[in-house]
Amino acid sequence: MPYQPPVRDHLFLLRDVLEIEKYANLPGFADASMDVISQIVEEAGRFTGEVLAPLNSVGDKEGCVWSPDHTVKTPAGFKEAYAQLVEGGWPALGAEPAYGGQGLPHVVNLSFSEMSSSANMAFSMYPGLTHGAYSAILNGGSDAQKDLYLPKLASGQWGGTMNLTEPHCGTDLGLLRTKAVPQGDGSYKITGGKIWISGGEHDMAENIVHLVLARIEGAPEGTRGISLFIVPKFIPDADGKPGARNSVYCDGLEEKMGIHGNATCVIRHEESVGWLVGEENKGLSLMFVMMNEARIGVGLQGVAQAEAAYQAAATFAKERLQGRSLTGPKNPDGPADPIIVHPDVRRMLMDSRALIEGGRAFLFWTALQGDLAHASPDEAVRQKAGDYMALMTPVVKGFLTDKGLQVCSNAVQVHGGSGFTEHFPVSQYMRDVRIALIYEGTNGVQALDLVGRKLAAQGGRAVMSFFADIDAFVEANGGDKDLKPFTEGLAKAKGELQDATMWLMQNGLMNPDNAGAASTDYMHLFGLTALAYMWAQIAKTVQGKIAAGETDPFYANKLVVGRYYVERILPDTAAHLAKLKTGAELMMALPAEAF
Amino acid sequence: MPYQPPVRDHLFLLRDVLEIEKYANLPGFADASMDVISQIVEEAGRFTGEVLAPLNSVGDKEGCVWSPDHTVKTPAGFKEAYAQLVEGGWPALGAEPAYGGQGLPHVVNLSFSEMSSSANMAFSMYPGLTHGAYSAILNGGSDAQKDLYLPKLASGQWGGTMNLTEPHCGTDLGLLRTKAVPQGDGSYKITGGKIWISGGEHDMAENIVHLVLARIEGAPEGTRGISLFIVPKFIPDADGKPGARNSVYCDGLEEKMGIHGNATCVIRHEESVGWLVGEENKGLSLMFVMMNEARIGVGLQGVAQAEAAYQAAATFAKERLQGRSLTGPKNPDGPADPIIVHPDVRRMLMDSRALIEGGRAFLFWTALQGDLAHASPDEAVRQKAGDYMALMTPVVKGFLTDKGLQVCSNAVQVHGGSGFTEHFPVSQYMRDVRIALIYEGTNGVQALDLVGRKLAAQGGRAVMSFFADIDAFVEANGGDKDLKPFTEGLAKAKGELQDATMWLMQNGLMNPDNAGAASTDYMHLFGLTALAYMWAQIAKTVQGKIAAGETDPFYANKLVVGRYYVERILPDTAAHLAKLKTGAELMMALPAEAF
Repeated sequence: MPYQPPVRDHLFLLRDVLEIEKYANLPGFADASMDVISQIVEEAGRFTGEVLAPLNSVGDKEGCVWSPDHTVKTPAGFKEAYAQLVEGGWPALGAEPAYGGQGLPHVVNLSFSEMSSSANMAFSMYPGLTHGAYSAILNGGSDAQKDLYLPKLASGQWGGTMNLTEPHCGTDLGLLRTKAVPQGDGSYKITGGKIWISGGEHDMAENIVHLVLARIEGAPEGTRGISLFIVPKFIPDADGKPGARNSVYCDGLEEKMGIHGNATCVIRHEESVGWLVGEENKGLSLMFVMMNEARIGVGLQGVAQAEAAYQAAATFAKERLQGRSLTGPKNPDGPADPIIVHPDVRRMLMDSRALIEGGRAFLFWTALQGDLAHASPDEAVRQKAGDYMALMTPVVKGFLTDKGLQVCSNAVQVHGGSGFTEHFPVSQYMRDVRIALIYEGTNGVQALDLVGRKLAAQGGRAVMSFFADIDAFVEANGGDKDLKPFTEGLAKAKGELQDATMWLMQNGLMNPDNAGAASTDYMHLFGLTALAYMWAQIAKTVQGKIAAGETDPFYANKLVVGRYYVERILPDTAAHLAKLKTGAELMMALPAEAF
Repeated sequence: MPYQPPVRDHLFLLRDVLEIEKYANLPGFADASMDVISQIVEEAGRFTGEVLAPLNSVGDKEGCVWSPDHTVKTPAGFKEAYAQLVEGGWPALGAEPAYGGQGLPHVVNLSFSEMSSSANMAFSMYPGLTHGAYSAILNGGSDAQKDLYLPKLASGQWGGTMNLTEPHCGTDLGLLRTKAVPQGDGSYKITGGKIWISGGEHDMAENIVHLVLARIEGAPEGTRGISLFIVPKFIPDADGKPGARNSVYCDGLEEKMGIHGNATCVIRHEESVGWLVGEENKGLSLMFVMMNEARIGVGLQGVAQAEAAYQAAATFAKERLQGRSLTGPKNPDGPADPIIVHPDVRRMLMDSRALIEGGRAFLFWTALQGDLAHASPDEAVRQKAGDYMALMTPVVKGFLTDKGLQVCSNAVQVHGGSGFTEHFPVSQYMRDVRIALIYEGTNGVQALDLVGRKLAAQGGRAVMSFFADIDAFVEANGGDKDLKPFTEGLAKAKGELQDATMWLMQNGLMNPDNAGAASTDYMHLFGLTALAYMWAQIAKTVQGKIAAGETDPFYANKLVVGRYYVERILPDTAAHLAKLKTGAELMMALPAEAF
């Protein structure tokens, strides 16, 4: 059975858990009644399931093909699917109405993004990066730039990219060398080599708008001398149509473990013509607008690939007959039982669901914070939501992709030998998702961002607020005996997270390597606690429905999966706490030459 | 820097930790003085590093090529390397002198096997499977069969395979359909289709000896009606030379995630001529002789790929300049510090070393038990060693390959974006090692073998003996304050393992699903405890050397890595214990259709 978009789980989160209709007073949300959202999510399910999913394996097997004339051919069917994507208005869902967008909340757009990433991660990256370019220009561009570029990027008629990495600089953008020379007419000539540029060249859009980090001649060294430029592949003519070919070229594609359907380009700027976005030397902060948005999108890929892989594993486990249940035959008339009767197969499937469903709730909840931070008329709400968005972004990216890989690897394992062959889809999911732990800042960089920057911001306001919210939830619901497993598990995890936070405050300042040494364990402890909080909220929602007479097993099953999360996954918190408290000493003890 | 065989660590384990010279009174060991072993291990390092390692990437990129005439071409260079392998006498290291082997202890052979798997896993599987075929015939064959086949298999002049899996039966061999019809002359005609046959066809050996599971006409159903047959590709003539072509054909190769250099064949027996090995209907137990040996070999692959991947990551981390140390520049004259200064990069490298070096000790220690079980003149020693070999085999296979994948994935992560490209070796290590969690019995099957069969055998004699040995070690060394971190960590882990064992005894009998639900966590708890025991022994060895005035940092570094293991990896034991004690209830609660 091919990928089935989890429409119901999305609608359950939006309607019942996040109660999105509560926000109808906010801009954008008014147009997003549950009726409208249901239609969008169902249509998203159809489009991604029927149009994008069938091309996923094609993309993996064919890959993109580069030609010496610097063109890149995408896999069979991609171009037609892209046309349908644009035709359907999908890229414009979350864009501003002023630029042709539908102005819907980000959290609604996220539903489409998750499905599209599950259906075809490599394909979905093209519009994903385009939206990043859209956001950078929206945030930093001049009115003329906005008018010229945003409608084309919002619709997907033109593609967008992020040109950051150079061979000698990835994480450390301060080392960047690409240079920009002012031409006196407001334009710059840009020269330098970029690598790993996703969607840097392809045949699906009539133009490609590169957002390029470069150093203006004479700019300071390091990160304070970096500016952001728009470099269109075809320079727009007076009518805003693609005109002269700019001297930005794709010189080749990377061979990669996965996402073969996405063109990962070596890009050469040879005095390409570019225009400054925002102020000189302020490029990095603008790029981080794109980057933060992209990080949520990458966390989403973790959930999305996990969902697709889990579905394949569940289907296989119900169909593959092998061995008998330890408690007696469950399929006595068949030659063997389906392998889903084996507890260890169940373990992998249940782990997957607990992480996917909890992770999706965390993803949607965080995206809603982004919407509130943007749209709420109440400054206190905006501030708190903005704090949460900033605090959670590295956790969403790092934790959900680490867990995404684990789920995909388990899906391979459920398949046994079949999972290692390329006749089943799970090998691709595992290979594709692997990049999500790396790009847009490796998960180690996320963990360091969390402990080194996000925790300390505004005197720890965000994390204190998170603790207070959890305490309030536990206090309000601790007396409910049906919720007890959830509130108890959550309270314990929160206590450990708070303990770890205290340890970091005391020991990270004393020796910054202690913070670095603790960072990944802290991020996981944080992610586990956040999912416990999500599961507790889901459980409360579901209990309310059941108490009101709801008998659909969808709800009762949620409680089983949620309690499984608390019993079988949450115990990892204590191990993370114990590890991180050991500090940096042994970790850093060996001299480099001993490795 | 390409793969550097860890000669020194192997010799340290053999000489100092396992004290192999103590066993000079045993057959085989007398010829294995440390002088001889050193020469062999060093020469193994040269051969695998210089001949096999350079072909690893070639094998991955070219793969094997099947032709419609049923031949398979191995990647460029494989055939020549195979000739050198045979010429060098490497396959014969551990084989019996009566059949042209060198009769060395298995633990010495293991050193070569690990290096050869690190250097080129796909290549090393060809002689690996050949040795399995050798062992099956050695154990179950007639004298005539032994005389005919063993010298050719021992030398590697002929290759060997295991023909088990069929499309509808992998783990559950009772479903096997391939049939054997007696011809009245002692031979059988065998008909049926086999899949996933590693090395099932290739161009490197003059003959290929298939060991085939099939059902003799009229045999009982299920596992009690399965017999084992020798089916040579070319039927030996009167002189024992390859004669008439047998009707066993390779109909195609699997496309796989990794080990592209190994031919994974679809094999068709079309009335192929075969000869029974051992008794009718007793094939499965003979196949398990091969299988158990193969399981140790697969656990070895976990360590071997981890070692190769770790080395690549360490090299990259020392060379890649990016960012600055949190505690101030460490490479002030360079544009940035090497990324090994970052604690989170160290974490991944230190995790890797702690698991690899401890895992290798566990592997070698287990192999030595195999040698003692075989060769000791003392029945008590033989029994205990045999118990350990049986008990540890599933742990070696399951735990060391799970951890092997983790280390390989971390090595990709250390490389950042480079790790996802195929220009660096780590993607291949991660893709290659993935199969090790699956074949020769998935890791879930290993875990079930451990809790369902190995624990209970002889009233739990093996595991009781393991606990007693650990207790004795802790008692003998608990007073040594330098060893305190090790003895304390070991005692705590052993206490938790014992607690888990008690829980299993009480709850597994009550409901077998409890045993299944606990199995993987139990296997990991067991593996973590076993490595703690190994690290404690390594620490004791090293402390002895240091006390005697040894100043080589090799030894002091071992203590750092060992203590890191105790502080940073061992805390997972408590989480495994907590999880497994929750039992099967929630895991099995959902009906199959809810997935």
